[in-house]
Amino acid sequence: MTARSQSNAPRRLHVTPLEPASRSVKLALHEKRLDFDVTDERPWERAPSFLVLNHAGETPVLVDSPRDLAEGNCVVCGAGVILEYLEEAYGGPALLPEAPGERAEVRRLMAWFERLYAPQAGWPLLFERVEKRRRGLGSPDMGVIKDALLALRWHLDYVSFLAERRHWLAGQIFTLADVMAAAHLSCADYVCELPWDHFPEAKAWYARAKSRPAMRTILKERLPGTRPPPHYDDPDF
Amino acid sequence: MTARSQSNAPRRLHVTPLEPASRSVKLALHEKRLDFDVTDERPWERAPSFLVLNHAGETPVLVDSPRDLAEGNCVVCGAGVILEYLEEAYGGPALLPEAPGERAEVRRLMAWFERLYAPQAGWPLLFERVEKRRRGLGSPDMGVIKDALLALRWHLDYVSFLAERRHWLAGQIFTLADVMAAAHLSCADYVCELPWDHFPEAKAWYARAKSRPAMRTILKERLPGTRPPPHYDDPDF
Repeated sequence: MTARSQSNAPRRLHVTPLEPASRSVKLALHEKRLDFDVTDERPWERAPSFLVLNHAGETPVLVDSPRDLAEGNCVVCGAGVILEYLEEAYGGPALLPEAPGERAEVRRLMAWFERLYAPQAGWPLLFERVEKRRRGLGSPDMGVIKDALLALRWHLDYVSFLAERRHWLAGQIFTLADVMAAAHLSCADYVCELPWDHFPEAKAWYARAKSRPAMRTILKERLPGTRPPPHYDDPDF
Repeated sequence: MTARSQSNAPRRLHVTPLEPASRSVKLALHEKRLDFDVTDERPWERAPSFLVLNHAGETPVLVDSPRDLAEGNCVVCGAGVILEYLEEAYGGPALLPEAPGERAEVRRLMAWFERLYAPQAGWPLLFERVEKRRRGLGSPDMGVIKDALLALRWHLDYVSFLAERRHWLAGQIFTLADVMAAAHLSCADYVCELPWDHFPEAKAWYARAKSRPAMRTILKERLPGTRPPPHYDDPDF
């Protein structure tokens, strides 16, 4: 079951709606002002037509048709891989700094959200609140949600720690670290009221991120049957 | 409890012995012929002196002192991040191809081993066979080992699928995909006899990897109290 958008952009992004990994790539494409079409996937159904694109059976997948590519399309799998690819294949606003040490700091924080935040906090919240219904797996486990929210406070504290010291998470410029963090935290913010007021520096950073045109576009998206809290897409929350 | 090696190399790598992530960085440093000293860590003890290096509390961590860095050291955290850093900060043999699409294929396979192979097969095997004893957590669970070995066969089958089509895993040249795969599979090969003979293409690829000087250096390392199978460091296994 796929929803195809209508234009004829030179690239198509296969996503799962309200999935942080998919959202991070959408956000980067908007930041870099690259046109794209979207196909909504249901990767847990393991359809052969999707598995042939990505043997790992995961979204996001970008099917790109760069002008200078003589033979066919370029299929790029996985959020981190696509984000690096977009930096290397296209100009436009740079989302990675120049110096190797600064690039490493951006990537450290990307990995933080993918490898620590997601399994400890983001994924259990989204799984209980959204995925279980989407996949017909029963009702949410409130104990899991409670533990995930506790872990989430620790991660918001870390975002505050960073935001006290830097304008954006990895330094003075907006980078893929902010893209990844905003993608992950905004998905959690859709399914529950995050305690932003307890973490004022994190909140100030997130307000800056929400004010960016790319993020405002993303925050307009709605998952059928699930409504976010009122402050969700308000930059002055 | 740290074991410090003796030279005065311009960089120090903090590792956990027989950990695939740490091993992948050692392997890349040897491949790129960059000198380094090693500190063995016990990250599960969460010592403040190590947490201050990496807030995530994980090995590997590279403390680098590049000649052109005016102020102090550069601390780089996490295998994937360090491998990218070494490519960007140093010349020497390139472990990433030039074209963005080919680089994406290398990174897809790196992510395959870190995000699919490790949780499904590599980590449960190493946890049951090595980590439990190292951390005083009791005896191995044979059911977990059996499931992990089943998953491992599926991954060896995928390596065969790739090696039937390509000389190295991501294409014609040896890349970070081979580094990551060899690091992960060699750690599993240390703790149990992998069924290489059932996957002849994967075996032929691994024999090529084992013949490289960098890999031969790594395969000489021994974990006190644990002996690998006889074929472990033999390129003609």
